[in-house]
Amino acid sequence: MAGYNLEAIEAAPLKEDVDIVIPTIRSLDFLEQWRPFLKHYHLIIVQDGDPSINIRVPEGYDYELYNRNDINRILGPRANCISYKDGGCRCFGFMVSKKKYIYTIDDDCFMAKDPSGKEINVIAQHIKNLETPSTPHYFNTLYDPFRDGTDFVRGYPFSLREGVTTAISHGLWLNIPDYDAPTQLVKPRERNIRYVDAVMTIPKGVLYPMCGMNLAFNRELIGPAMYFGLMGEGQPISRYDDMWAGWAAKVVCDHLGFGVKTGLPYVWHSKASNPFVNLKKEHKGLHWQEDMVPFFQNLRLSRESDTAAKCYMELSNMTKEKLTEVDPYFEKLADAMVAWIEAWEELNPPVDGKDVKAK
Amino acid sequence: MAGYNLEAIEAAPLKEDVDIVIPTIRSLDFLEQWRPFLKHYHLIIVQDGDPSINIRVPEGYDYELYNRNDINRILGPRANCISYKDGGCRCFGFMVSKKKYIYTIDDDCFMAKDPSGKEINVIAQHIKNLETPSTPHYFNTLYDPFRDGTDFVRGYPFSLREGVTTAISHGLWLNIPDYDAPTQLVKPRERNIRYVDAVMTIPKGVLYPMCGMNLAFNRELIGPAMYFGLMGEGQPISRYDDMWAGWAAKVVCDHLGFGVKTGLPYVWHSKASNPFVNLKKEHKGLHWQEDMVPFFQNLRLSRESDTAAKCYMELSNMTKEKLTEVDPYFEKLADAMVAWIEAWEELNPPVDGKDVKAK
Repeated sequence: MAGYNLEAIEAAPLKEDVDIVIPTIRSLDFLEQWRPFLKHYHLIIVQDGDPSINIRVPEGYDYELYNRNDINRILGPRANCISYKDGGCRCFGFMVSKKKYIYTIDDDCFMAKDPSGKEINVIAQHIKNLETPSTPHYFNTLYDPFRDGTDFVRGYPFSLREGVTTAISHGLWLNIPDYDAPTQLVKPRERNIRYVDAVMTIPKGVLYPMCGMNLAFNRELIGPAMYFGLMGEGQPISRYDDMWAGWAAKVVCDHLGFGVKTGLPYVWHSKASNPFVNLKKEHKGLHWQEDMVPFFQNLRLSRESDTAAKCYMELSNMTKEKLTEVDPYFEKLADAMVAWIEAWEELNPPVDGKDVKAK
Repeated sequence: MAGYNLEAIEAAPLKEDVDIVIPTIRSLDFLEQWRPFLKHYHLIIVQDGDPSINIRVPEGYDYELYNRNDINRILGPRANCISYKDGGCRCFGFMVSKKKYIYTIDDDCFMAKDPSGKEINVIAQHIKNLETPSTPHYFNTLYDPFRDGTDFVRGYPFSLREGVTTAISHGLWLNIPDYDAPTQLVKPRERNIRYVDAVMTIPKGVLYPMCGMNLAFNRELIGPAMYFGLMGEGQPISRYDDMWAGWAAKVVCDHLGFGVKTGLPYVWHSKASNPFVNLKKEHKGLHWQEDMVPFFQNLRLSRESDTAAKCYMELSNMTKEKLTEVDPYFEKLADAMVAWIEAWEELNPPVDGKDVKAK
């Protein structure tokens, strides 16, 4: 037992600086398996949907839990910027955290093993990714040059080897891949069994589909841009909460000079959601992404936007201006983006020297 | 033996469409080990340096060999665009080939094994990379979506899933990593033992350090941009032949709408070159790359340049205009780039419908 605790402590880097945010509608039994790695961290649980349901949290975990009534009480009229009956509600947890780093994980994700059979300490890997620089300006063919046993290869300019501060670490999933409904329907039996032993920077100017299942970020740097949008009940769209956050956060990172990594660590994604339900949830998104992606690819933020919050306010204006022609929904979304930033700033008042600006 | 041949034939895709180009100063005994995979392909050997040395080629290989006298005879006054006493001379082999695909490999590279212990068929993997599309416009977090067992993930726009034609497949190296002299000196014992089981597209607009050790490309699409520059004896720089080709070919691919992949297959790179010798060869390059990389990052080719050859002529003008201020060497290089294209076109006259244009 002593050995066990020792191992757990060693395995829990920066535990005072990390909150784990979990959106859920059910008991969190999945945390039993995660105990060796996650037990030492504080949890922020955001209860999705009916607040009268009792969420069971395994014993020994330190946590705070917010249900819809709490969100309404804390945010008042701005509470409607937080999605209802949708995992997108997790971003409320980002807002009430006071920590430097957030790790967010879905409750159907379990510990995975690396090819040697060793259980993967997700949080240690995410922290490593976030605490070492990114290299968004030029591609290193041996992947993350800050990893043990590797470096910058021949032909990598020395002026770029310092890298930039990392803001986001996007982890992957073994077993059930994160496919959209059409792909799920076409390939119902496809499983991701390939462990790709790499972490890499997504280059500047390049967008990617950010999945919220296994995601860590520096909330001081990029938190205000990690808004998971208006999805779920009462909205015409779902399953694009993390995509919206990922596109927005990437363009804000690119603008502010922060880096985004993807790759390790893997989680074991246990169950595929129902493709027919997903199709209904995401069918507008499948269409709208053809406009949303070029929108984010082509926008240019102004020099005046030198914090994530200011960038996000500018993005809200651009959303209203450019995407409302795609669907009136985007006007509502743009208003919710403003409410989100106002609420963020109320809960996270700028402290001298803590309002992180671009370099 | 029958079994052996059968296996070799199965393992030799598109053998009529591929030439293997090898620059060397010594006997090609390394081909003995490669026999199961490379035996069925035609070799173009470019003999580097003293033409009186006899290069031994293992029995059973079908090859043509060119030494300096051959290069001078075939190219006449333009022969000085081919580097002397430098591996960069390999690009002469690209020019005299008549095949669709080139695979080029260094003679200190051997067959590597994947983590399951299976010997890696480099050429089969390169062909697979080249014959499936690239995805340069948006990053797929599960890497190459055209690989077995994977696909485009949720949030990947359907309009981008067709991909673009792949022009370059950049393979990697286990054991001795491709470091520059300063990194070699600082980390003399570092070995690459990490097998990263991935192929990925280098996104549009992003540069990378292309290494010529283990490289395949579609010469019909990009051949004229695969010029390995003026290096080695009589020049102020060496060890930047492949870098120059890689930067140029990448901007040309981006302009013409072709894709570039990196990752699998691995070779086993057997020996580190002398870091002190390398430092002498590359010290100007280490300095100049601080200008060369931004030069390639910022240039924009014109709409009129709709073939690799035309792009390359335009690049030659830009090199003269922008890089000569870095060093007069670049004026010589720019002239050699013109001679290269003239020689290429003489040896590869455009055939109707074969002069590949951008889409």
